[in-house]
Amino acid sequence: MNTGNIFADVPGQVPDELFEDLLKTGAVRVERIVSRGHRSPDGFWYDQDRNEWVIVLKGRARLRFDGQADAVELGAGDYINIPAHTRHRVEWTDPAADTVWLAVYY
Amino acid sequence: MNTGNIFADVPGQVPDELFEDLLKTGAVRVERIVSRGHRSPDGFWYDQDRNEWVIVLKGRARLRFDGQADAVELGAGDYINIPAHTRHRVEWTDPAADTVWLAVYY
Repeated sequence: MNTGNIFADVPGQVPDELFEDLLKTGAVRVERIVSRGHRSPDGFWYDQDRNEWVIVLKGRARLRFDGQADAVELGAGDYINIPAHTRHRVEWTDPAADTVWLAVYY
Repeated sequence: MNTGNIFADVPGQVPDELFEDLLKTGAVRVERIVSRGHRSPDGFWYDQDRNEWVIVLKGRARLRFDGQADAVELGAGDYINIPAHTRHRVEWTDPAADTVWLAVYY
């Protein structure tokens, strides 16, 4: 059985956002994301074919959804369900600490 | 979009283990489990039709798998993938604090 720790093995330097599959099957993919001040490029919107249920386990982030005036602030334990093709971007993540996300794509 | 916090809304008393669906579709179900000293009854084994990927987000727990000499200790951030029909039981959870699990059934 695959085991591990989602907070482990984060390198000291994180020049690029880290993406790592923790589980991958036809129906579902579970991914760890580690951000450290990373944000989506200006003008970039995620427009995903799959639904995404995502939770911040550590750190802080801010998501923006296309057409919504207010951004969504996420801290430890906060989760949100993002239906497929809901355009969104990561507007901000904490530059001073790791933000660890757990994303379930389905 | 459904939002919430996985650490929120835990009652002061938890006489029974808490189970709550955070996401439920045909292909996948995401569940929050809150244990406070709960364990599987003597002689009881989970024998599930679906695979389960589970992570402990807070607290501590010990799983036992049928036929394995050593139990599996889980603390914050530890995850394990449990294939369908892998007989297992919760042998122990921390009686002094909440153990919050996030389970993905697929």
